[in-house]
Amino acid sequence: MNYTYQYARAALTVDCVIFGFDGERMQLLFIKRALAPFQGTWALPGGFVHVNESVDDAALRELQEETGLKDVFLEQLYTFGQLGRDPRERVVSVAYFALVNRFSHTPLAATDAADAQWFPMQALPTLAFDHAHIVDVALARLRGKLRYEPIGFELLPKKFRLSQLQSLYEAVLGQTLDKRNFRKKVLGYDLLIPLEETQRDGAHRPAQLFRFDTKRYQQLKKKGFSFEL
Amino acid sequence: MNYTYQYARAALTVDCVIFGFDGERMQLLFIKRALAPFQGTWALPGGFVHVNESVDDAALRELQEETGLKDVFLEQLYTFGQLGRDPRERVVSVAYFALVNRFSHTPLAATDAADAQWFPMQALPTLAFDHAHIVDVALARLRGKLRYEPIGFELLPKKFRLSQLQSLYEAVLGQTLDKRNFRKKVLGYDLLIPLEETQRDGAHRPAQLFRFDTKRYQQLKKKGFSFEL
Repeated sequence: MNYTYQYARAALTVDCVIFGFDGERMQLLFIKRALAPFQGTWALPGGFVHVNESVDDAALRELQEETGLKDVFLEQLYTFGQLGRDPRERVVSVAYFALVNRFSHTPLAATDAADAQWFPMQALPTLAFDHAHIVDVALARLRGKLRYEPIGFELLPKKFRLSQLQSLYEAVLGQTLDKRNFRKKVLGYDLLIPLEETQRDGAHRPAQLFRFDTKRYQQLKKKGFSFEL
Repeated sequence: MNYTYQYARAALTVDCVIFGFDGERMQLLFIKRALAPFQGTWALPGGFVHVNESVDDAALRELQEETGLKDVFLEQLYTFGQLGRDPRERVVSVAYFALVNRFSHTPLAATDAADAQWFPMQALPTLAFDHAHIVDVALARLRGKLRYEPIGFELLPKKFRLSQLQSLYEAVLGQTLDKRNFRKKVLGYDLLIPLEETQRDGAHRPAQLFRFDTKRYQQLKKKGFSFEL
């Protein structure tokens, strides 16, 4: 069956920029394209939006189909609507970004594992289409959001050391932060709950573990509180 | 001529949320729909994206065609891709928001004037489609951006009094700000250039005029400076 319209229509796709953190470095998840164009090239997971699903649902579906990831933090990033993005025809893509806790998610679906891979942010492969540009936009957004919203906790294990949180911020922002200032600031918000447990941090003495107080953050946010790191 | 595709395709539109400031209140510009659906109802200016123009260009074109506005601050807001947004068929809309300096732009094209009108934010009309929701999203974005980027100056005359700047912040944020703290903070960034001229502020004594130092802001921004009010 074919679908006919009076005016030419763009195809609509979704693309997902997926950030992970391995404790030291920021990483991005790409899939290897099985078909032309850009066959064999790494690309953002994504695909065509079905006419009977919302664009958000399309992003969730494609993410799961191509990488096995579900129940992750997923947010709309930007819509890329320039001409010539796709050599085949006019394609407009709604991009999303996902933050994946690599400590609690199996990274890849077994069936697709051969075609999906994490890359450290400092060594990204050549990407299909305008996906390198989309990654740049996502990274700028992540840097901005991390300063004003506590989304970084999505990337950490539920229980974490302050040194892990600092490493995450340093990896995303690309700069070294003063340890004492960082701790003072982050503890000053009273949003981290110290746990009974400790954890060995390499060869160092056991370090205190914390978890993020989501409930308190939601309450403060309602009152107009703004987080800033 | 008709266009045929193997799969059904959504129609793609743009919608523009246009903010203005009259010195006291935030205002929004709507057009009255000439055709069904929602004939005679107020709506955001917008329309279908042509297959041979970028989505950004479609927003600029529709804005000018329907309201006469051009050369305004226009930024992509969000893409609304839920099912059932339009009673006719599947329509995905890329929304933009524009900040209009009402002191230097003629508000409306003569030809369309009867069908376009500014409304104060506190007294918006019933809107077509999901446009009330789009306005809510735009307002939240404006509130957030105003705190961290000096975009408020787009809404003011080139030369302004500090009381005008404060009124703008109060109108957008919906709260009264302490005059002394506001002035201290805003002048502390050294981003306002005091002018020789003064201006009468109603019955009060002549008030100093300022202009925003765009050049210095761009330089500071490159160095990683972040503005916050």
